[in-house]
Amino acid sequence: MISTDILIIGAGPTGLFTVFEAGLLKLKCHLIDALPQPGGQCSEIYPKKPIYDIPAFPEVLAGDLVNNLMKQIEPFQPGFTLGERAQTIDKQEDGTFIVTTNKGTKHHAPVVAIAGGLGSFEPRKPPISNIKDFEDRGVSYIIRDPEVYRDKKVIIAGGGDSALDWSIFLADVASEVTLVHRRSEFRGALDSVEKVSELSKLGKIKLVTNAEVVGINGSEKLESVVIQHKDKAAQDTLLEVDDFIPLFGLSPKLGPIADWGLEIEKNAIKVDNTLDYQTNIPGIYAIGDVNTYPGKLKLILCGFHEATLMCQSAFQRINPDKRYVMKYTTVGGVHGFDGSVKTAKKEVVQKIG
Amino acid sequence: MISTDILIIGAGPTGLFTVFEAGLLKLKCHLIDALPQPGGQCSEIYPKKPIYDIPAFPEVLAGDLVNNLMKQIEPFQPGFTLGERAQTIDKQEDGTFIVTTNKGTKHHAPVVAIAGGLGSFEPRKPPISNIKDFEDRGVSYIIRDPEVYRDKKVIIAGGGDSALDWSIFLADVASEVTLVHRRSEFRGALDSVEKVSELSKLGKIKLVTNAEVVGINGSEKLESVVIQHKDKAAQDTLLEVDDFIPLFGLSPKLGPIADWGLEIEKNAIKVDNTLDYQTNIPGIYAIGDVNTYPGKLKLILCGFHEATLMCQSAFQRINPDKRYVMKYTTVGGVHGFDGSVKTAKKEVVQKIG
Repeated sequence: MISTDILIIGAGPTGLFTVFEAGLLKLKCHLIDALPQPGGQCSEIYPKKPIYDIPAFPEVLAGDLVNNLMKQIEPFQPGFTLGERAQTIDKQEDGTFIVTTNKGTKHHAPVVAIAGGLGSFEPRKPPISNIKDFEDRGVSYIIRDPEVYRDKKVIIAGGGDSALDWSIFLADVASEVTLVHRRSEFRGALDSVEKVSELSKLGKIKLVTNAEVVGINGSEKLESVVIQHKDKAAQDTLLEVDDFIPLFGLSPKLGPIADWGLEIEKNAIKVDNTLDYQTNIPGIYAIGDVNTYPGKLKLILCGFHEATLMCQSAFQRINPDKRYVMKYTTVGGVHGFDGSVKTAKKEVVQKIG
Repeated sequence: MISTDILIIGAGPTGLFTVFEAGLLKLKCHLIDALPQPGGQCSEIYPKKPIYDIPAFPEVLAGDLVNNLMKQIEPFQPGFTLGERAQTIDKQEDGTFIVTTNKGTKHHAPVVAIAGGLGSFEPRKPPISNIKDFEDRGVSYIIRDPEVYRDKKVIIAGGGDSALDWSIFLADVASEVTLVHRRSEFRGALDSVEKVSELSKLGKIKLVTNAEVVGINGSEKLESVVIQHKDKAAQDTLLEVDDFIPLFGLSPKLGPIADWGLEIEKNAIKVDNTLDYQTNIPGIYAIGDVNTYPGKLKLILCGFHEATLMCQSAFQRINPDKRYVMKYTTVGGVHGFDGSVKTAKKEVVQKIG
C-alpha cells in the first residue's frame, strides 16, 4: 500500500504543480496516471507544439512546460504510479481514502485531488470483433518499448504522426514494417511524410494505402492479418505478422472516475469554486480541466490557481489544529523534502567606517 | 482623453497579464501606474530577487518575470500612463467610466480593472514640518532622472539599497554627495556597502552617520538643511545643498481608490469570486493582491487566473450580443493588434507515392 498526504489522479500540468504548492505546506504527494510518463496531454499529444498563454512565457513548447514543472517539484520528491488507471475509491471509516488502479496497486491518503484533465486517454481501437483476444499477444495500441519489435514482422495502421514516426523508427529495428492507411494522404509533419515516402521507395517500409486491416488470426498469439483494399476489384491480402499496432490516436474518457459518486455535469466534475474546488464528497477535490463551475475556463493557468487554493484546504483537512501562515517564497525560500534549500540572497547589514 | 476597452489601474504582473488575455478577445487595454515603470513591486522593490512559486519557473528574478510579461503582451500594444496615480472615477450615464489621475490625465473606458496590488507605493517622508513646501523645489523622494543632479550639491538620507545605490551613482554626477543615516549600519547588498565605504575614503561621498536631517530652509527653493547628531555633545550642522533626497522606502496605501464607493474589507476590495471578480460596482473589477474573497491568497499566479476570468466577463459587458468561443492559443495562435501572428506549425496533409 502506497501512503501519502495528497493522492493526485492525473500527472498533467495541474497535477504536477499541485506537488509544489503542497510541498510548500509540507504535504507529500503521489500521482497516478494512465499514461506511461508525466505531463498528460502536453507530453502525449502535443509535446512539440507551442503554447502562448502560459503567463510570462511568450512561447513555450508543451514538452518544455512539463520539464520545467518536473524540475520545479523535484525538491518535493513526489511518487508516481504510471501506466495504471485509477479504478476504484473506497472511503475508510476514518475519512481517508483507498484508491486502487486497474492493475491492483493500492494507494492510501486523507485527501484525493482529481486532476484528470479530459479524462484518461484511451487508444481508439479498430472495429475488429476479436481484437481484445489478441491484446498483449501481438496487438498493442501504444509503443512503450520499441525493442520488443526487434527482428519482428510488424504491421502499423494509421495516417497521423504516430503511425508515420513509429514506421520510420521501426524500419531500422523490425525485420519488416508494413504501414497500412485507409487513405492515400497522410496527416503529419512534413519531414515525417517525406521520410516515409523515401523509405517506401527504398523498400524499407512496405506502404499499403487505401486499405484497412479487417481481420486478425492466430491460435496462441497473433499470426496474420487480413487487409481489405478500397479498390473493390482487388482481393483481400493475408499478411503474416508478429505484431499489429493500430495507431489511431487517443480519445479522452472520464473513465472509472465517473462511477465514484461525484456530481458530474457535461462530462466534468462539479466543484465549489467559491472556496476550495472541493467536490460533493468531502476530502475529494477536482482541479484543472476535469472540473466545472460557473465561468470555468479549461486553461492550464486556471488549473495552477485551483491547485494552489485546493492545497490550503487540504492542509486544514489534514492538520485541523494547525494554522498555516503563508510565507512568500521570495521571503521564506523553498525547503525541499530532499534537504535542498533555495532562498533569495539576504541583505547585508554592515557598519561603514 | 485616452479611450480604451479595459482601463487597468496598476501595471504589476496581474495588470500586465490582463493585456494578454484581453488581447486574445480583441479588447484593447491602457494601464495607469503611480510608479515610473511597469512591473509594480517586482520592478520597484525586488527586481533582483528570485521568485520560486511562478508555475513552470523553478526560479525567476522578479525583474525577468516583468520583462517576460512585457514581451508576451507586446503584440497587443497596450497604452501606459506612468508616474501618475488614478485619483477619481466618474460613472457616465451610458455606464462607462472616466478615470482622472493626480496630474489631470483623463481616461475613458467601459470596463475598469483595478489591479492595484497593495495600493500605490507612496514614499515614506521624514517628519519635517515644512517638507511639503519644498517638494519639487529641491526635495524629491524618487529619482527619476539622475541628470537633474549634475554638478549640484546633493544630500541623500537613508540606510537601505536605494540610498546606497544612488549615492554611488550620483558620486560621479553631482558636484558633492552627502549621505546621512541615523545609524552607523547600512542594510543593503554587500557590494553596495563596500563601494560606499570606498568612495567615502576617497572623499567622493561625504558620509554622516548617527545623524538625521531635521530641518530644511530656503526662500524660492531649497538652500540648506540642518543635520542633528545623535551624539548630544555635537552641535547641529547647517549644510548648504541644492537637493535633498530622502530615500526611506515606499509604503503601500490603497490611496484614492478607497474613496471610489467600492466595498472594502481589511484594506482590500471585496469581489465576487463565484464568477468574475467584479466589485459591488458593475463594470469595475478588482484582480490580484488588491482584492479579497473567501480563501484569497495574495499570489501572483492567482492574479493571472483572476485576470483571465475577468476578461471573459468584460468581453460580455462590452459585446453583449456576441458569443465568445474560446480557442486555445496552441490551436488558434496569437494574432496581435500590430499585425503579428504567432501560430503553431500546421500539420501537413500529403499524398505518398
